[in-house]
Amino acid sequence: MNTILRKVVFCLSFSVSAVVYAQPKVERWARFEAEWSYASGGNLFREVQLSARFVGPDTTFTVAGFYDGNNRFKVRCMPTQTGTWTFTTSSNKKELNNKKGSFECVNATGNNRGPVKVSDVHHFKYADGTRYYPLGTTAYAWTHMGQGLQEQTLRSLQNAGFNKIRMCVFPKNYELVKEEPELYPFVVREVKKDEKGNVLNVWDFTQFNPAFFQHLEKRIDDLNRLGIEADLILFHPYDKGRWGFDAMPHEVNVQYIKYLTARLGSFRNVWWSLANEWDYVKSKTVADWDALTQAVVESDPYRHLCSIHGSTATYYDYWKPTFTHASIQDDAPLRHSGGVSTLRNVYHKPIVLDEVGYEGNLKSRWGRYSPEEMTHLAWVGAMAGTYVTHGESYMFKDASDTIFWAKGGQFNGTSWKRFGFLRKILEEAPSPLSMSDVSRDYRTSSAGEGYYFVYFGSEVNDFWLFNLPAKNGEGPKLTAGKRFSIEIIDTWDMIVQAVSTVFETGPETDYRLFDKDLKKVRLPLRPYMALRIKEIK
Amino acid sequence: MNTILRKVVFCLSFSVSAVVYAQPKVERWARFEAEWSYASGGNLFREVQLSARFVGPDTTFTVAGFYDGNNRFKVRCMPTQTGTWTFTTSSNKKELNNKKGSFECVNATGNNRGPVKVSDVHHFKYADGTRYYPLGTTAYAWTHMGQGLQEQTLRSLQNAGFNKIRMCVFPKNYELVKEEPELYPFVVREVKKDEKGNVLNVWDFTQFNPAFFQHLEKRIDDLNRLGIEADLILFHPYDKGRWGFDAMPHEVNVQYIKYLTARLGSFRNVWWSLANEWDYVKSKTVADWDALTQAVVESDPYRHLCSIHGSTATYYDYWKPTFTHASIQDDAPLRHSGGVSTLRNVYHKPIVLDEVGYEGNLKSRWGRYSPEEMTHLAWVGAMAGTYVTHGESYMFKDASDTIFWAKGGQFNGTSWKRFGFLRKILEEAPSPLSMSDVSRDYRTSSAGEGYYFVYFGSEVNDFWLFNLPAKNGEGPKLTAGKRFSIEIIDTWDMIVQAVSTVFETGPETDYRLFDKDLKKVRLPLRPYMALRIKEIK
Repeated sequence: MNTILRKVVFCLSFSVSAVVYAQPKVERWARFEAEWSYASGGNLFREVQLSARFVGPDTTFTVAGFYDGNNRFKVRCMPTQTGTWTFTTSSNKKELNNKKGSFECVNATGNNRGPVKVSDVHHFKYADGTRYYPLGTTAYAWTHMGQGLQEQTLRSLQNAGFNKIRMCVFPKNYELVKEEPELYPFVVREVKKDEKGNVLNVWDFTQFNPAFFQHLEKRIDDLNRLGIEADLILFHPYDKGRWGFDAMPHEVNVQYIKYLTARLGSFRNVWWSLANEWDYVKSKTVADWDALTQAVVESDPYRHLCSIHGSTATYYDYWKPTFTHASIQDDAPLRHSGGVSTLRNVYHKPIVLDEVGYEGNLKSRWGRYSPEEMTHLAWVGAMAGTYVTHGESYMFKDASDTIFWAKGGQFNGTSWKRFGFLRKILEEAPSPLSMSDVSRDYRTSSAGEGYYFVYFGSEVNDFWLFNLPAKNGEGPKLTAGKRFSIEIIDTWDMIVQAVSTVFETGPETDYRLFDKDLKKVRLPLRPYMALRIKEIK
Repeated sequence: MNTILRKVVFCLSFSVSAVVYAQPKVERWARFEAEWSYASGGNLFREVQLSARFVGPDTTFTVAGFYDGNNRFKVRCMPTQTGTWTFTTSSNKKELNNKKGSFECVNATGNNRGPVKVSDVHHFKYADGTRYYPLGTTAYAWTHMGQGLQEQTLRSLQNAGFNKIRMCVFPKNYELVKEEPELYPFVVREVKKDEKGNVLNVWDFTQFNPAFFQHLEKRIDDLNRLGIEADLILFHPYDKGRWGFDAMPHEVNVQYIKYLTARLGSFRNVWWSLANEWDYVKSKTVADWDALTQAVVESDPYRHLCSIHGSTATYYDYWKPTFTHASIQDDAPLRHSGGVSTLRNVYHKPIVLDEVGYEGNLKSRWGRYSPEEMTHLAWVGAMAGTYVTHGESYMFKDASDTIFWAKGGQFNGTSWKRFGFLRKILEEAPSPLSMSDVSRDYRTSSAGEGYYFVYFGSEVNDFWLFNLPAKNGEGPKLTAGKRFSIEIIDTWDMIVQAVSTVFETGPETDYRLFDKDLKKVRLPLRPYMALRIKEIK
């Protein structure tokens, strides 16, 4: 286990100085935490300012500390380099000011590969250089369900092999998701009832509820143990006056961002998603979203991945430098691989199609994609070097059914398995994918030199005449005399079958190279077939 | 004729003051020009600075003057409001400084509708409020051909009904286009020969050749008379060391922009296209292009339409505020209407697909689209409320053939007629088009309330069951009990045929409304059919 909180407790009270000191070891990209006690009669969230400057071998991070309840103040750091790190605190309270300490950052172990970063314009890598292909799913409000269901969700995710999950900080109030959460992010100031007798909590926005955030952290750490990135949604519109977290004053939103980033910036598997369906949040303008995004970026010295997600076909200005990637809700670009390649060409950033629709049986059209369609869209995206997120919305009984889309639980569909298979296929490739001959050949994709995919989508073909484009993305052109082996990939049945023939490119003919003897591959008469074509070197 | 140059000649020489004065009448959006003589022994392009401040009823334009050869200095203005306009010059030469005058701006007449501006985010209007749907073609170097061929080009354009042409300021040196122009933009300083004995002009970049620009102006005025916008390409890569206009020093490029805009800013039918295939111009970086674009915008008080055009699938940062629209080379977005709608959703600007390929018979794949394909792409674009530019590249003899794409001449293809037909269809609609139910229905398009198009593309259908999406873009949803008439449009044969049946919407069923009696339209068993569906009110 590599996510151990290395915690140093400095016992402090209102008037007593630090007496305990230690120099623990922390894995690279794991979490260092130091804690002090401080008490007073006032609101400690408001009264105390605390920050710390962490100095590593050639990196300095200045991070905000935070009040964690019970008179405990904490600062956290994710060291990014091995070696000795020292820190010094700053505070408006002398008891918390100028506290110093150090720790030793040691090599990462196990599945600790560091945070995910953008790599090669359109793709991702862990900080240790390992490729990361986001194949995630969605369970917006899973951390707000009962503990048993949360545990089941974790087991389902582990079993499925997803490596990312979209999830909301705040609870969700929406058709089919009405559960009252156990914990709230703010302290309740007053409990009212509306005209219908419904309980209406009035929040004390000056006091966070540490237990809420501790629970969220526990679940993010649970995900981290499973190698799953938490694509954390900071705001969403699914509230409708129930708790009011979609319509807090701007100053409260900023305070919330500062508190959240102070707590979670040191969690290596956190991504910031400013919002889900930002355009449905009627209380905020684009200028507000820009300001909130800026607040996140300024509070996050590690520069975790950061994006924002709109409603169908609503594109935020993803070219703004605050966003590391585009997190899109739209399946239109995937209706033809040219469309999704175009998004890459436009943004020059990774394209993550985080919501293309959900495999399921709901009445709403977003919630009734067939598993085949869900899988197909993921393959269209992957072939163009973009990333499609899975989602599932089956309901078999009534609103109490634990639709994975919002509540988590168990997967009831069948596309989730195919996402795991696709992930394996991508991870086996030597490089991320790009269309080989963009805007000309819409089904051949390259993973570097001498490694191709051809995806036939819904076409059912009896055979494929060996032919590849001369053009190979940014790489050198394909030439005659190259020998290739081919495997047929059944993307639905998840079978890879080698073709016994060896193919050899002839001369370039009208932008393409055929096998010199015009050899072909026999294909099963089924849709969703792909080929993996590797040069024999 | 409404483009008459209202010219006031103020006879000035080195030491003699103005003696002639007049107050002419100038049509709104036509061109006012004042002229003075000034002589000295030096380089008048460098020695003299001249500008003028034009003050209209509530608009002020400050424009650069320019030296037009033969000791003549000019300032021009395109008045944008009727009423009295006055002007005052500023110059470093006292003989040209503080010259004052005035003119009366009167109502526009004839086909003078003013310059084209962006309207309704994705579309265009003339300044007088008339809709403008760009249906243009391309003849990059037509003004550099023989005069007879230029006249023929104008006749072809007039006959075809195009309302925009993409054309280069500089001559073109490219496969199939090798003609030496009659005029050059700069004065020749020295004539050299290269190793092969080819003539190599060495330019005096400090002296423009006014005759070159006068000729260009004449042709732009010719286009204006025909109601054709000149989408003027300021730089391009098709030089290859022959004249070197693609690789001039940055300072010369800026001087050229200032001179060109001083001359042409007052031409109401000018659009600025910073470049064709900017990414193939190896001497300029993106920062250079940004600076050159900025120079254009700063020199143009009228803010003519402005964009930049890359090679296939190369997208410039069109969201930059200097660009009024996206001028794209890519047919990938048109392979599925979802892709081209996505471009609208991304840029929030008009999308002009200025190069999707050329109808023709060349070996290169960009130059061998069938006329059907060229027409089809235009319809796909139009249905999504984007604009596809025509191009033609037929060669029947050898490189001396006047391929319209570069040289102009006559059209040898057949799609040009269909562009005129499409223009008529668009101009008859009450509003510009948008997909009715974006990212859900890829073939139904709305032109406002109660006016739809359905385009079937290459599908051949025996019938169409009347059904429209409930969603109608930004407008109110379609409801039951609306009556519709339908016409079948054969986009290839250019025939519009009314269907005798009247249709009436039933209740909304799963996002769509069918005819209450499930009536259908019989369709001809041919591809490229469309329907025009109008509410009977």
